[in-house]
Amino acid sequence: MKKFIHAAVIQQSVAGNNKPYNNDQTAHLIRDAVKQGCELIVLQELHATQYFCQTEDVDQFDLAEPLNGETFIFFEALAKELDCVLVVSGFEVRAPGLYHNTAQVIDGVNGFVGKYRKMHIPDDPGFYEKFYFTPGDANPPYYGFEPIQTKVGKLGVLICWDQWFPEAARLMALAGAECLVYPTAIGWDKNDSEQEQEHQLDAWITIQRAHAIANGIPVLVANRAGFEPSPATVKCPQTGIEGIQFWGNSFIAGPQGEILAQADQQGDRIITAILSEKSTKDIRRMWPYFRDRRIDAYNYINTRWLD
Amino acid sequence: MKKFIHAAVIQQSVAGNNKPYNNDQTAHLIRDAVKQGCELIVLQELHATQYFCQTEDVDQFDLAEPLNGETFIFFEALAKELDCVLVVSGFEVRAPGLYHNTAQVIDGVNGFVGKYRKMHIPDDPGFYEKFYFTPGDANPPYYGFEPIQTKVGKLGVLICWDQWFPEAARLMALAGAECLVYPTAIGWDKNDSEQEQEHQLDAWITIQRAHAIANGIPVLVANRAGFEPSPATVKCPQTGIEGIQFWGNSFIAGPQGEILAQADQQGDRIITAILSEKSTKDIRRMWPYFRDRRIDAYNYINTRWLD
Repeated sequence: MKKFIHAAVIQQSVAGNNKPYNNDQTAHLIRDAVKQGCELIVLQELHATQYFCQTEDVDQFDLAEPLNGETFIFFEALAKELDCVLVVSGFEVRAPGLYHNTAQVIDGVNGFVGKYRKMHIPDDPGFYEKFYFTPGDANPPYYGFEPIQTKVGKLGVLICWDQWFPEAARLMALAGAECLVYPTAIGWDKNDSEQEQEHQLDAWITIQRAHAIANGIPVLVANRAGFEPSPATVKCPQTGIEGIQFWGNSFIAGPQGEILAQADQQGDRIITAILSEKSTKDIRRMWPYFRDRRIDAYNYINTRWLD
Repeated sequence: MKKFIHAAVIQQSVAGNNKPYNNDQTAHLIRDAVKQGCELIVLQELHATQYFCQTEDVDQFDLAEPLNGETFIFFEALAKELDCVLVVSGFEVRAPGLYHNTAQVIDGVNGFVGKYRKMHIPDDPGFYEKFYFTPGDANPPYYGFEPIQTKVGKLGVLICWDQWFPEAARLMALAGAECLVYPTAIGWDKNDSEQEQEHQLDAWITIQRAHAIANGIPVLVANRAGFEPSPATVKCPQTGIEGIQFWGNSFIAGPQGEILAQADQQGDRIITAILSEKSTKDIRRMWPYFRDRRIDAYNYINTRWLD
């Protein structure tokens, strides 16, 4: 890892599925972040489109692109031009009928250096992701959790629902990740009470800060903002699902879980922070959890349930 | 688990190593908690004495007791009299030269129902626990992380340093723990800056709230309070270690990590909350992490480091 990384997280609201327009909007924000001195820039989950998983609709598969599709090519050219490390996120078609939720990392002039396919796939009302995304492969030696080396450091890229699983963060750290990166699209069902909404946002921030703490590395979270109406209000009004208020609140935390930068609920936002290699070293000396892990006693963590 | 558990956490400052006196003080607080309607009561780590690990001193081994020692017998009688579930914590001598940091659970009139020997042992200046405590055994089928069944529910008892390891919380949850319980003794080195002290306290609360969130169960944390001078100021003043300001802040969090009760930094304190079985059921339906764990992909979590 570089001694200091000037990092940015970009949070956006997305008004429709016009990819060239959306990508241009994102490009403006990336250029702005680079002007501010940033060399690592993280985009939110599925940034080229609206969050299309609010309903199960086969037509949405038209939004998917291969790994070297138009959106990737667009951002690869931009990252090369600006020589910045860019984490992009998209809807990947790997083969007919086989789709993934995939992040790709572009290492400035070096171009593409690695990808991560979302390992944990959610499915709940308004977030029908199991319909769209096959979980990432669990192939050895990394079983899906392989950090990606860039010129600024080794990135532990995970995606959204992964953020609720301490195992994912730990595995990335054990494999040498020097920071965790979470492109995300999470928001509220407006039918939930205000208190419930507060609890959800707080839980989401808390568990990701805890990944920083448990592993002694920074965490960068890029979350979507803005309201996106559900197609279900037209197609299936009886579900009562009206749309998702994506809650923004993108943040960057240091290796002790301390908040370094945080956005509000609105889009578009650029938040920036300086990540320090020394702060990870210092924290891991003072709080040496990796020294004390009981690897002789974690045998049944690979178990579904101990019954 | 009972539909509702009236739970209490007792936080204390301890002025010396007069065990009968200290145990009497604790008994007053337990009686008070029971008068308030509490049926599950959690004591802090090594509550019968001061925190004796500030230096490495063979004479301190005199403080240890067998599992059925005077302190246990005292609290077993009290728990039977009051018919409350009591989590006690002590310094166990298992054999000459073999000591553990052990919690025991007394299920009211049923008496002793289980013990937990601290699995992760810290060691840093002022907390020389590796000198005193052998880590708990990793014997199958639970490899050390076995919840303890009581009439109020199945308790996932862990101790202090364990709280920094998401694996420990997860393993207890997988084995059926319905809440996590952390007797603790953690505090500040007053030589640290105020900002560093804030970060430490915040990280400690955050990571334990995250265990509640990741596993959808409540967390009860009993931490020591008060200043305890280090014997090193007499024996070895050049270390610069003057003592530990135990930071209190004992808390109870619900299954979404929401704080239900929290103490301040001072001792003695009783905090109480009602834990609801339904709130765990509801949270685990809305946030079904156990459905989606990638047990095919966590293979190297038993690895020290992936190199």
